[in-house]
Amino acid sequence: MKLADFTRSAGEWLRGVGPMHDVVISSRIRLARNLAGMPFLTRCTAEQQRDLEARLRKDILAAGIAPQVLYVDVAAASELDRRLLVERHLISRHHAEADTPRGAVIAVDETASIMVNEEDHLRIQVLRSGLDLTNAVAEIERIDDLLAARADFAFHDRYGYLTACPTNVGTGLRVSVMLHLPALKMTGEIEKAFRAAHDMHLAIRGLYGEGTEATGDFFQISNQTTLGRTEEQIVEEFIEQMVPKFVEYERAARSGLLQRRANAVDDKVQRSLAVLRAARLISSEETMYLLSLVRLGVNLDRLRDVGLQTVNELFLLTQPAHLQKTLGKELAPEQRAEARAGFLRKRLGAG
Amino acid sequence: MKLADFTRSAGEWLRGVGPMHDVVISSRIRLARNLAGMPFLTRCTAEQQRDLEARLRKDILAAGIAPQVLYVDVAAASELDRRLLVERHLISRHHAEADTPRGAVIAVDETASIMVNEEDHLRIQVLRSGLDLTNAVAEIERIDDLLAARADFAFHDRYGYLTACPTNVGTGLRVSVMLHLPALKMTGEIEKAFRAAHDMHLAIRGLYGEGTEATGDFFQISNQTTLGRTEEQIVEEFIEQMVPKFVEYERAARSGLLQRRANAVDDKVQRSLAVLRAARLISSEETMYLLSLVRLGVNLDRLRDVGLQTVNELFLLTQPAHLQKTLGKELAPEQRAEARAGFLRKRLGAG
Repeated sequence: MKLADFTRSAGEWLRGVGPMHDVVISSRIRLARNLAGMPFLTRCTAEQQRDLEARLRKDILAAGIAPQVLYVDVAAASELDRRLLVERHLISRHHAEADTPRGAVIAVDETASIMVNEEDHLRIQVLRSGLDLTNAVAEIERIDDLLAARADFAFHDRYGYLTACPTNVGTGLRVSVMLHLPALKMTGEIEKAFRAAHDMHLAIRGLYGEGTEATGDFFQISNQTTLGRTEEQIVEEFIEQMVPKFVEYERAARSGLLQRRANAVDDKVQRSLAVLRAARLISSEETMYLLSLVRLGVNLDRLRDVGLQTVNELFLLTQPAHLQKTLGKELAPEQRAEARAGFLRKRLGAG
Repeated sequence: MKLADFTRSAGEWLRGVGPMHDVVISSRIRLARNLAGMPFLTRCTAEQQRDLEARLRKDILAAGIAPQVLYVDVAAASELDRRLLVERHLISRHHAEADTPRGAVIAVDETASIMVNEEDHLRIQVLRSGLDLTNAVAEIERIDDLLAARADFAFHDRYGYLTACPTNVGTGLRVSVMLHLPALKMTGEIEKAFRAAHDMHLAIRGLYGEGTEATGDFFQISNQTTLGRTEEQIVEEFIEQMVPKFVEYERAARSGLLQRRANAVDDKVQRSLAVLRAARLISSEETMYLLSLVRLGVNLDRLRDVGLQTVNELFLLTQPAHLQKTLGKELAPEQRAEARAGFLRKRLGAG
């Protein structure tokens, strides 16, 4: 197993299955953990950082968190490889761009990854396609237990797990889902979703997390604080009350559009597919925007000559690092636009 | 012969043949004439206007200007029929929208038409595909002579033909060509063409003449004054110096684009055709814009599955009145957008 092999599929987060997958692309849970008796990373000397990386690498690999894992020395990885991992949501942008000793342990089915020396000593994440937080919680607790058996995590009887950023203190748990809300965007009701997120104290972000714009019609919502609540409370509220609200809004907008403006939907969907099949130069942003509308068409059963699986894979495979990995060469942005267009024509069976 | 029959073809001005037809869509010559001893139209009583219309109608029909002519009582025609004639460039917008007694005599091959009671008592025009002003001049002089044999035109020994607007006094001649300048538009050099037109004292207008915006990539250039020059001088200068200048600019821009940015051209051309074939709702403006780029692709031999003839016809047949005539029913704008998209898919062999 090597990184380039990832480019053959869309990984877990874009598999396009699981509950409510018409709206919920993927679910993600993340835990922040730090070793007891060691300073937080920003307070570590360079040597301490190196020691931490080596020690945590050994502990995690020994813990056997998944049948097959890949360890990536992120500091030594090429820029292209680091970007590939970001595009697959296996490491954060921050982790890709830092300049400290750091690594990532990745279950090869991409359902779990652990960042070593990110903001905290350990950031454990579990990903699931669709709205599948219950299984994700069970999985992340299993991994947490395996690691806790080998490492002593900083824990305070009153505050809970201690973390570099105060917003993570407590359970250290962050829950998020990636939502596809094209109909709310099309009807102009997306503000309603933003207000709902605000009222529920949720953060709403773009496709690549903190500090990124909402790209096209994709929105990531997550809980903002973890102190004073149990993991079960946070997750249960998220699954049972919050996410279904957004799903309900989006589905209502979709059925409203179909009832009142079916041909406006068809127009957007058909044009999008046609452009993806015809372009000779195309950016990843435009590709994402057009694929989003094609995905809507497939989900509404208005488009039958393209599969959801293909669309989901293309979201990822047309991004800069994936494209270059797939084609096996580094390309300047202008060359990428041409290569991406050619790749799309091939995959979408252009006329 | 009736008006609806016109919708079966693109008429003369979009036939897509003739010299320099890659850039020059069509050539047009127009003469303004007024009867001696009668006031200009704005000075006529309603009764005088009616008399003029009846008398000129009789004279023109008797003159036998073409083997087959159609007389249209424009005042009595439906709005749809009047718009159809405007879209075919057989009458002006002003003539279509006036509320006085008026008519139009049209050679059924659409190479010539005469408006009765437009701004002047008579406006005679001859149209030719491509840059073909020499033949157009011979033809309009022939028609002028035939009419002059039956009607006494207002003529002043010193000023020449007298006309309602001083800019037409003299020969009463206006020469114009419709240019297709997509490459100059794409390279941003269109301003150069505008400056050249200005320096040559030419007026530059949109697709439907005076007061209309340049639609997409089509520009109509015409001489501005006719006093003190012979018909031959005006036409010769236009054919030999002015028009070739624009053709040269546009051709240079096209070959420059192909050399430096062939895939940017292909991208625009292929996307345009794809959208025309895929849209479910489309306006006439967008259709015109996209067809213009398809036409460029055909002329540059970058697109082989669509013929120039088809593209030229579609420019006309997708316009509001043509579309409604072709489909045999009146449609609201929203219905037209849908019907137009369906018509385009059928004509362009959509997948």
